[in-house]
Amino acid sequence: MGGDGGLTVSVPAALQMADQAQIALVGDADQIRAALARAQADRPGAQGRRTTPDIIIVHASEQLAPGDSLVDVLRHRPDSSMRQALKLHATGAADAVVSGGDTAALMALARQLLGMLPGALRPAICKPMQGVAGLFWMLDLGANVDCSPLHLYQFARMGDALARTVGGLESPRIALLNIGTEPHKGPRSLHEAAALLAADTGLQFIGYIEGNTLFSDVADVVVTDGFSGNIALKSVEGAAWMAGHLLRRWFDSLGFIEQAGVALARAKLDALRRELNPQSHNGASFVGLNGVVVKSHGAADVAGFASAIAQALREVRGGLRADLESQFGAGPAARSAEASVNHLLPGEEEG
Amino acid sequence: MGGDGGLTVSVPAALQMADQAQIALVGDADQIRAALARAQADRPGAQGRRTTPDIIIVHASEQLAPGDSLVDVLRHRPDSSMRQALKLHATGAADAVVSGGDTAALMALARQLLGMLPGALRPAICKPMQGVAGLFWMLDLGANVDCSPLHLYQFARMGDALARTVGGLESPRIALLNIGTEPHKGPRSLHEAAALLAADTGLQFIGYIEGNTLFSDVADVVVTDGFSGNIALKSVEGAAWMAGHLLRRWFDSLGFIEQAGVALARAKLDALRRELNPQSHNGASFVGLNGVVVKSHGAADVAGFASAIAQALREVRGGLRADLESQFGAGPAARSAEASVNHLLPGEEEG
Repeated sequence: MGGDGGLTVSVPAALQMADQAQIALVGDADQIRAALARAQADRPGAQGRRTTPDIIIVHASEQLAPGDSLVDVLRHRPDSSMRQALKLHATGAADAVVSGGDTAALMALARQLLGMLPGALRPAICKPMQGVAGLFWMLDLGANVDCSPLHLYQFARMGDALARTVGGLESPRIALLNIGTEPHKGPRSLHEAAALLAADTGLQFIGYIEGNTLFSDVADVVVTDGFSGNIALKSVEGAAWMAGHLLRRWFDSLGFIEQAGVALARAKLDALRRELNPQSHNGASFVGLNGVVVKSHGAADVAGFASAIAQALREVRGGLRADLESQFGAGPAARSAEASVNHLLPGEEEG
Repeated sequence: MGGDGGLTVSVPAALQMADQAQIALVGDADQIRAALARAQADRPGAQGRRTTPDIIIVHASEQLAPGDSLVDVLRHRPDSSMRQALKLHATGAADAVVSGGDTAALMALARQLLGMLPGALRPAICKPMQGVAGLFWMLDLGANVDCSPLHLYQFARMGDALARTVGGLESPRIALLNIGTEPHKGPRSLHEAAALLAADTGLQFIGYIEGNTLFSDVADVVVTDGFSGNIALKSVEGAAWMAGHLLRRWFDSLGFIEQAGVALARAKLDALRRELNPQSHNGASFVGLNGVVVKSHGAADVAGFASAIAQALREVRGGLRADLESQFGAGPAARSAEASVNHLLPGEEEG
């Protein structure tokens, strides 16, 4: 139900991905059914396709509102669509949750319903971003304002697991985001995190990285506290917005003949503008939780939401959770905790 | 002597600005004389111009090296060009210092030789950046890793003074960089800084700003601690680099006819790439010091270094120092401290 586009985005995206996974849509069942019918009718070649794809509808009687506080979210919305979706995951009925709703609400509910991976101290938000020679993973992007050196060390382990299981990298290069690359630069907490990382022979720690080389294929995993990471990510978004604005102004400034020349290349230019935008790789992973949760950007379109679903699929199929469980060393305990909440199965299930 | 290009950048830049200000070049006198001769010969229409512009050469027998520690800089380089330039300013012989040397060294020496404006707790590094509708000023960009709410409040006053005296704005809109715009977002220190700013009726405080709207004409002054600010600035640089890379790849991906069309617009495209780069407005101001110091980016070219000189000129002519003195409330005391160091006049002066 979440995200700026609501069901007009999430439902067509689910339909688009229904060939690759069994999808449960959680929310107001009547609204979802109507959106699903519209989305199916809108599909190119709708007549020729089967009309009942592998999608089930799970009714939830309420949804979170923009004004809800975290107390509301956690205590006063017992049947919110976000809570019900996470319950499906907590009980094992679903392998992952994808949501376009509020980040803080999703994180709070995910911690409440899924809990942490035993041994993991804090969850982090991690996004794959497009660099010059491939993707890189950056975390934390906003879950934790203050981070201890041990938190940063654990984030590095989580990012390493993502880059290996989802990104297919053998030995990801891990760097700490800092304001210089010399060992004495930045705050003491980073120096201590660097010492922890350098001592771990299972990780390829390459030292500090600065924002100006984020995209230059220097590191595969960039570790930072959630305050600086969020500011870096959003500043890149701002710069991409500015670049798009300048590109438009450039095009408008051209004479007729120049415009005609550029028009030929316009489609490729639009593709470039999409690539400039960090949101084009939509889907922020919540890592460190006892589950797979992917947050789709609120402003994502259908293709963006579908790419967030695809990311959740890659995490499930790549075995991210088992990898993280073995890293933080508590596999069996986590599994039994999961089994014990099986009685929480949602009451209403339609499809 | 500093910066990647050394005298091949600073000397032609000085020559370019010599019509607008009397400039002293501080460093190895023989090298400077040679560079000056070359730069004058290289100028378009060199024959027709007077050959002795308003430039004097002040000899310094040593210069800082990349491996120098701050202890070296402060104690073991008594005749470094950077120190001699700052001495010229401390004694009143110069109205401002522009340097392409190491930022940390310049800040340390400036604090030692100029001292702080009485009442100012910490110096900040501030850069004007190009937004969609004009310049905005962002500080601190790296002088202070940890900042108290009072430091942030003072940075806002400094940014306000810059935007008024240099930018010509009447009532600059001031915002704190945060990871959300709602009052409860981010760390407590920001909430306390926001309370201080909201209570000051002399400032137009508009609340929090996120990185994604930095360029959108929301705020004229963006206040942040030096760690986050440096990371935001450099992440924007990284994104601009990536945008330039993608633009080049886009051009290379075009077919012959498309390339021919775009080629017509190529010059304007290059201008756009320059505009994307935050370094195109070269010159970071050190504010809060008892003086005017502008740091030119190490990688700046002649035009960039000239723009850093122009920025120092705008600060001097705009009365930034007097404005800040009155803000931090210690004008007369600062002036008498300045007068007391007049005996420090440099020994060697050539012209």
